[in-house]
Amino acid sequence: MTTDAEIAFETRLTEQASAVEARLRRSLDDRPLSGEIARPERLLLAMRHGVLNGGKRLRPFLVMESAALFDPDARDDTALCVAAALECVHCYSLIHDDLPAMDDDDLRRGQPTVHRAYDEATAILAGDSLLTLAFDIIAGEPWEHGKRPTAATRLVLVKGLARAAGLGGMTGGQMLDLAAEHASPDEAGIIRLQAMKTGALIRFACEAGAILAHASSADQERLAEFGSAIGLAFQLADDLLDMTADASQIGKATGKDAAAGKATLAALHGADWARRQLNGLVEQAHALLDPYGERAAMLKAAATFVANRTR
Amino acid sequence: MTTDAEIAFETRLTEQASAVEARLRRSLDDRPLSGEIARPERLLLAMRHGVLNGGKRLRPFLVMESAALFDPDARDDTALCVAAALECVHCYSLIHDDLPAMDDDDLRRGQPTVHRAYDEATAILAGDSLLTLAFDIIAGEPWEHGKRPTAATRLVLVKGLARAAGLGGMTGGQMLDLAAEHASPDEAGIIRLQAMKTGALIRFACEAGAILAHASSADQERLAEFGSAIGLAFQLADDLLDMTADASQIGKATGKDAAAGKATLAALHGADWARRQLNGLVEQAHALLDPYGERAAMLKAAATFVANRTR
Repeated sequence: MTTDAEIAFETRLTEQASAVEARLRRSLDDRPLSGEIARPERLLLAMRHGVLNGGKRLRPFLVMESAALFDPDARDDTALCVAAALECVHCYSLIHDDLPAMDDDDLRRGQPTVHRAYDEATAILAGDSLLTLAFDIIAGEPWEHGKRPTAATRLVLVKGLARAAGLGGMTGGQMLDLAAEHASPDEAGIIRLQAMKTGALIRFACEAGAILAHASSADQERLAEFGSAIGLAFQLADDLLDMTADASQIGKATGKDAAAGKATLAALHGADWARRQLNGLVEQAHALLDPYGERAAMLKAAATFVANRTR
Repeated sequence: MTTDAEIAFETRLTEQASAVEARLRRSLDDRPLSGEIARPERLLLAMRHGVLNGGKRLRPFLVMESAALFDPDARDDTALCVAAALECVHCYSLIHDDLPAMDDDDLRRGQPTVHRAYDEATAILAGDSLLTLAFDIIAGEPWEHGKRPTAATRLVLVKGLARAAGLGGMTGGQMLDLAAEHASPDEAGIIRLQAMKTGALIRFACEAGAILAHASSADQERLAEFGSAIGLAFQLADDLLDMTADASQIGKATGKDAAAGKATLAALHGADWARRQLNGLVEQAHALLDPYGERAAMLKAAATFVANRTR
């Protein structure tokens, strides 16, 4: 059954994805490459391949909607820049994650991965460049058509993004995930590594929107917790898809976790348990947003979507 | 012949290297990894292996001395943090550059490269994490024992570092350098790619010091130009070493440029031409600092050192 709220959500998700893709294109095209500098065309093409590939743009959506929750006018070009920066970090992590030395994937969203479309060296550099670009966008983008955040706000965003993406967050989680193929962490260990690997950036997406809209510290923290809940749900849904879907459905190889001997919560407790757990996480996420009433409908729909996604 | 100025320079370089290494150790140990987060020990070890490996710490030295040129008190913990951040970026680029898909090097400074000491996936993540840490340090480090720069100053540094390290700078230059194995760029092309690959970060090191010491825009630009001159000299000296030294002398494989069919200026025009060119660049670098008189002695000695280095 598709409800009106779900239709409204899907429409908004698609709209925001187009907007953030336009912003990403601009950020990639506008980089000041002066006369003394040669354009590394192949690198730019590989970066575009990795970032403009029709993703759902969930993290950008969360930035935009979290900002709008506290200030409807905050869904502006400034927020789009921050959203685009987070997507650069997400896409760089996918490019590096797909490399032969990591997950060794040939397909991503139904297209050849960057190292398959280009080569490994180019994929490594494209990932590095997208990560660097994310900080360039937050610190350097003029953001002319939005509210101009203060230097202090931009700095909080730089710091938060670095913390979410680095060794205490995403890359640390990726490392623990690689080790999990041999080390078999316990349930608490799996939850921790997933909170770092995929959770930290989703958490920060929600927090960043609240920061941009000058929400109170308490509200920023509440949105961060909402992000943590849907981050967990996201990973659980991913594990479930890896167990039950086929490659043509989700556009990448499946069954890889089991093949790699990687323990996931879904594999540990079974698909039924995972689905019940997902429902619990959605309820928890919704409850966190109850204080905001109807204004939080889009974010609540996002939580439902994350848990129920089929690709 | 070793002059007093050269001895003073070598002593200072060694002192500063120790100070920046202590700062790097602190930055790696102090990362807030809360109770909810598992410490990715293997990743931290690999990052330490890549960054605490007895490098010359030239870029940090340039940050410190450029700052001290305009304000003797600016050679403080704040400058050390910025210096450490630049070194993180430099070391990350070496880790990724050494990967099998890139230069495929087994040795770096006489030690196994990170992917040889650990594995490729860990080396990719260690590089990613060091790059991310650099921005974390500039945006997030409390810098308690130094002058506290304004958020605006930190933001200028984040932006400058991102521009120097990204597709219009270092990674762009690395990409062009990889392409040069097949494309054979002309002399102007080689100079451009080297100005990006190694020049941009050395240029920014000198500029960053001036920014930290609140130098005028004209002085910041002059220091940046000084950095560009010694960046070119650095690369030319590197090419010369690759042609003439052996691996035991410089702690990494040599003769790789020629073997890879890579055109360097030194290979194009011969070693004698390269040595004359180096002298010219040193003169040019020194002339840029003449307005600062005796205060610039250390930076001038750095320019001489870069051109004459034998490892």
